[in-house]
Amino acid sequence: MIWTREKRYQPYSAYSEADKETLAEQVSSSVYKPAFHIHPTSGLLNDPNGFSYFNGQWHIFYQAFPFGPVHGLKSWVHCVSDDLVHWHNLGIALNPGNQYDSHGAYSGSAQVINDKLFLMYTGNVRDKNWQRRSYQLGAWMDENNQITKVNQPLITAPDYVTEHFRDPQLLKVNDEYFALIGSQDKQNLRGEFSLYKTQDLKNWEDMGYIKHNLGDMGYMVECPNLVYVDDKPVLIFCPQGLPQNILPTDNIYPNVYTVGSNLDFKTGTWYSDTSTLMQLDAGFDVYASQAFNAPDGQAYLISWVGLPEINYPSDKENWAHCLSLVKRLKVVDNKLYQIPVTAMSTLAVAEQTLPQNQQVLVTDTKQQYELKLDLDSNQTGNLLLASDGTSDNGLQLQFDTNNEGYLIVDRSNVGEKFATKYGETRKVNVNPHKKLSLDIFVDHSICEIFINGGEQVMTLRFFAPQTQTMIAFSEQNTLKYSGSYILLSDM
Amino acid sequence: MIWTREKRYQPYSAYSEADKETLAEQVSSSVYKPAFHIHPTSGLLNDPNGFSYFNGQWHIFYQAFPFGPVHGLKSWVHCVSDDLVHWHNLGIALNPGNQYDSHGAYSGSAQVINDKLFLMYTGNVRDKNWQRRSYQLGAWMDENNQITKVNQPLITAPDYVTEHFRDPQLLKVNDEYFALIGSQDKQNLRGEFSLYKTQDLKNWEDMGYIKHNLGDMGYMVECPNLVYVDDKPVLIFCPQGLPQNILPTDNIYPNVYTVGSNLDFKTGTWYSDTSTLMQLDAGFDVYASQAFNAPDGQAYLISWVGLPEINYPSDKENWAHCLSLVKRLKVVDNKLYQIPVTAMSTLAVAEQTLPQNQQVLVTDTKQQYELKLDLDSNQTGNLLLASDGTSDNGLQLQFDTNNEGYLIVDRSNVGEKFATKYGETRKVNVNPHKKLSLDIFVDHSICEIFINGGEQVMTLRFFAPQTQTMIAFSEQNTLKYSGSYILLSDM
Repeated sequence: MIWTREKRYQPYSAYSEADKETLAEQVSSSVYKPAFHIHPTSGLLNDPNGFSYFNGQWHIFYQAFPFGPVHGLKSWVHCVSDDLVHWHNLGIALNPGNQYDSHGAYSGSAQVINDKLFLMYTGNVRDKNWQRRSYQLGAWMDENNQITKVNQPLITAPDYVTEHFRDPQLLKVNDEYFALIGSQDKQNLRGEFSLYKTQDLKNWEDMGYIKHNLGDMGYMVECPNLVYVDDKPVLIFCPQGLPQNILPTDNIYPNVYTVGSNLDFKTGTWYSDTSTLMQLDAGFDVYASQAFNAPDGQAYLISWVGLPEINYPSDKENWAHCLSLVKRLKVVDNKLYQIPVTAMSTLAVAEQTLPQNQQVLVTDTKQQYELKLDLDSNQTGNLLLASDGTSDNGLQLQFDTNNEGYLIVDRSNVGEKFATKYGETRKVNVNPHKKLSLDIFVDHSICEIFINGGEQVMTLRFFAPQTQTMIAFSEQNTLKYSGSYILLSDM
Repeated sequence: MIWTREKRYQPYSAYSEADKETLAEQVSSSVYKPAFHIHPTSGLLNDPNGFSYFNGQWHIFYQAFPFGPVHGLKSWVHCVSDDLVHWHNLGIALNPGNQYDSHGAYSGSAQVINDKLFLMYTGNVRDKNWQRRSYQLGAWMDENNQITKVNQPLITAPDYVTEHFRDPQLLKVNDEYFALIGSQDKQNLRGEFSLYKTQDLKNWEDMGYIKHNLGDMGYMVECPNLVYVDDKPVLIFCPQGLPQNILPTDNIYPNVYTVGSNLDFKTGTWYSDTSTLMQLDAGFDVYASQAFNAPDGQAYLISWVGLPEINYPSDKENWAHCLSLVKRLKVVDNKLYQIPVTAMSTLAVAEQTLPQNQQVLVTDTKQQYELKLDLDSNQTGNLLLASDGTSDNGLQLQFDTNNEGYLIVDRSNVGEKFATKYGETRKVNVNPHKKLSLDIFVDHSICEIFINGGEQVMTLRFFAPQTQTMIAFSEQNTLKYSGSYILLSDM
């Protein structure tokens, strides 16, 4: 199918139920379909939205175009969970279509207010000349998950920003609400963090851009997201066009974070001791992550595993992308740690200790498992996931706990190629002469690697034949390590 | 020594001859000193300037801070050659110090005008508050290499650009002269190409920015350079802060080129059939390249082998950087080829055919040689330059002429580490199932790899013990290839 603009933006009613069933069947029969990651029931998924805890459940929405593997007319699809691990897909919750969101109900966030969940999102409207206008909109969701949109826009774009003005995060600070919005300055075309204040969700005060010392944030800031972790404000966002000299990154657009000392909401000023910008994820495919402070006192993060403007191999099966696992956050020495939630253990079906002195560690992984592997110091080697028993084919994890200290993930020899323009390896440095602890989740076509207790994370998609079921070292194994393989069930 | 601002900008007269002799001794005794590449006689070298043919000789100048491995008060150092290969260093030619270049005689170009060589360069001035002003200046060099500065600035910065306004290239088009200048727009802080016109080198008409369809060129364009190759205009430049989605690059700042169909000097418009931006060099260390159309009908290019804001291992020996070999240019299918000049053969001392079926190809290279290697199709392997005979140590050239088609240069296992933040490997794709032809020049601490007749070039510095003198494959050699090793003399 040729996805013309007309097709991408025609109303959902133009598609038949049979069309959608065909698409859903393509997802459910795909060998790449994840077992315990949120994925689209049909078509395309992107940003997580409205991550929250409300009415005794965890809620996450995702950006959806349910009719193909393209970025068309977007809605919010709703998923709920009792444990942050088992998610139930309730279908489309927030439809586009009125005068303020005729061309898409775009990304946003959620806050529990009184006995309802308030959704704040960006409505997209295109005029005859396909010029974009963005509105920041509201909607109330009740305890029956019924959603009622607020009639009027909460915020219309000020005249000093371009049409790139989106992704509001609604924050409650004492008795006031604030919205953090990604924007592009009209005069200099640079990315900024806009800040608005309100008491009543109706009258909003424009506080201008957040003042910060982070330097040039590229030509646009997407998905700004503030979360407090171990009493520190952490700003997570997606700068587009970030200069390499500010933060070297390989992905087309990075997802980054910085740990501050204070965001002063009175003056709209970001204070930090270090002003260091870091990659949120050192892998290939994380974007648009959203975190929030939950009532259990923890901060949780979930990410889109996919990147804008990149074609993925599942496109030809007419579906695309998934969300990451939920990750609990902590901050140590101004560094953000991401840790799988403890309830992940409820997926465990069987666990086996890894054998010693064998090149093949697991023969048939079933492609949905957790691998815990603690490598002793002063070793080098190459671990293959999704191996077919040859010494090359597979997702390669090249490690050095000797003089250098690194982990390289190489997806150049594992199935279908994609995004090769941006490189086929990613590397993180670890301390030389130290143990290396890996906690790896593999789910058919997604791999999440938590390094040294979540100090670094590498997330990626790969598209290998499901007959490549081994975990093996690429050479004869005289390495020192301990660990286990845990078969995981569907969620 | 701590290089305070005061020390970096004090007049050259503040340094004693003994200081300079000590520094010169450090270069001449360095094991990393190149034998046939232009390098500083003392201190730091950066951009090539004023590349030209005048008075029966080839001329190149380089940006110099002769008193340490830092970017201090800059002058032009003059080198001449009869053959583009053997260069003679004549010392400082253009000194900073008057009211328009008190804080540096910065980069520029040269044109033969009547019986003199006209140098056009940027003068840098700092005020009490260290605010920068830039002037585009002129100087005449006569047949005795005597230089006389023009009293008044040729061009002062217009009010719509910031203090980043530099690197003029003087071009002669029919009976008029044009200057192409790198600039940063004051309003939106983006990089632009400024164009000025003159008949008499005195009265200059501001033609504004060149209109082009190349997209966002980052926050500054350095060293814009127009050259005609095989009748096509080729624009070579260094965009700083170029977005990854426009051209993925790993270096802190890339050196890029684009092949156009016409630069219309009447309207200041760049026309091209493709608007494709390409990396000029796929290695680690090329910047600020300068090309010109020579009277022999050829276009020649020379590059700074070094990057801004990166520390190199020779810094601790108080010197830094070198220039590349001179490369002849040609254009095939809108792609720029770079080819070593034929006079390189005059450096050849001895040539030996590479042995077959041996892991070690050359035992003692002397670290100054040319290696010609034509690898047959459908093979993979790993060639080590500067090898010590072990299977890992050395500058690794991993090649695949089989299904994938690539050449990876890996400098992670070859001596002193530097710039690791920007990655330790660089990769180029080549046609799978085809022969791969490599023409490699190694000169103690610099390596230039010409791939498939110069279709791609990878240039890099590396700093290995000079006891690592072998060329070897990392594994037992059953490969099919032909080639030779050519020992090269000092220039």
